[in-house]
Amino acid sequence: MMSPMSEPAFRRARSAEAKQAREAAILEAARELGRARGVREVTLTDIAAAVGMHKSALLRYFETREQIFLALTAEGWREWSAELRGDLARRAQATPAEVAAVFAGTLARRPMFCDLLAQAPLNLERNVSIESVRSFKLVTLEEVELIGGELGRLLGLDELQSVDTIATATGLAGALWQMATPGPRLRELYTSDPRLGHAIVEVEPRLTRVLTACLTGLGVRSAAVD
Amino acid sequence: MMSPMSEPAFRRARSAEAKQAREAAILEAARELGRARGVREVTLTDIAAAVGMHKSALLRYFETREQIFLALTAEGWREWSAELRGDLARRAQATPAEVAAVFAGTLARRPMFCDLLAQAPLNLERNVSIESVRSFKLVTLEEVELIGGELGRLLGLDELQSVDTIATATGLAGALWQMATPGPRLRELYTSDPRLGHAIVEVEPRLTRVLTACLTGLGVRSAAVD
Repeated sequence: MMSPMSEPAFRRARSAEAKQAREAAILEAARELGRARGVREVTLTDIAAAVGMHKSALLRYFETREQIFLALTAEGWREWSAELRGDLARRAQATPAEVAAVFAGTLARRPMFCDLLAQAPLNLERNVSIESVRSFKLVTLEEVELIGGELGRLLGLDELQSVDTIATATGLAGALWQMATPGPRLRELYTSDPRLGHAIVEVEPRLTRVLTACLTGLGVRSAAVD
Repeated sequence: MMSPMSEPAFRRARSAEAKQAREAAILEAARELGRARGVREVTLTDIAAAVGMHKSALLRYFETREQIFLALTAEGWREWSAELRGDLARRAQATPAEVAAVFAGTLARRPMFCDLLAQAPLNLERNVSIESVRSFKLVTLEEVELIGGELGRLLGLDELQSVDTIATATGLAGALWQMATPGPRLRELYTSDPRLGHAIVEVEPRLTRVLTACLTGLGVRSAAVD
């Protein structure tokens, strides 16, 4: 027979489970809307409508629209880092060009993560609580350290070189994605005016070229020091 | 004596002059507010108040808040490019590290331009007319070509390598500036929590290191092809 204490404990567990399910549903709705329209176009009202909740009820689960997208940015870091490190871990050795291609390919396959990488410092981190920023930053710094382990093993990069490389890859992926996704109105302009050919940006080839050059150059400097 | 035709012509000139003076005053107000608070915090109402106009009157000179800041971004490109090229033009030769330091130094001395470089593709280009984007893009592409001339002369970069380098410098300057300027609340967090040390970003040293590596790496690949 149940003790008198277990009933509330059971209820709390049920309620914690229900809360988690609700949070997951909210994140899933934001993820789908963000993917379809771009993060900038998604409001809290849109997310509430998609998940079938009142906006006021949704605000019991997340502080702001920005907190929802910051949670998706943290999730994006974990998933991207896991795929990147999984790919690098299978290699006994790799050239700078090969490592660059893995970075560029895994980022370019995640358009919403690229979008979020640019949105996070500009918009998302500025409209959430300090505690939300702290836990977001701890996730990114942990992933940066883990990725750095692979860069050290394969290319001999030290900690500062790894942090520089990862900041370049993610910072540039965010910036290039914004340039590469100007919306149909501007894309039409860039393709119709022959003077604007260079305004068309392709994320993956440019990111591959730039990171190949960076990693090659870092190797030159390391080798010169050795 | 004046012909009957010169009076209206004179008036048009006066009125064109007055219009230009008004536009210059609006841009100056936006420039000062953007420098003081960061571009994101400046509304059209703030600009109108600073210049002593009604918002509806201001809208006769500029389409939107975004058009004002896109005009300042174009101005920033011209001024930055002129200083950068002036510095490079005085050199008969330069190492990748020296060119990288000139890029990083001239960008880091222009905090509002760095802010605008990140804001332009995310926010500014999306809330103005197609013609405003076209003239903005033509300014940036012209400056990219001029800067490319110096990169070709000093480091032997071809057109694609020059465009990649300038896109990296400006894209990363924008992204790093946003990370480096999180506002007093987050700066306090990053300095008070020792686990968040790597969250503190300094624009100029990181940009110098990354661009040095890139330009060195591009040189390695060019040399290998020759």
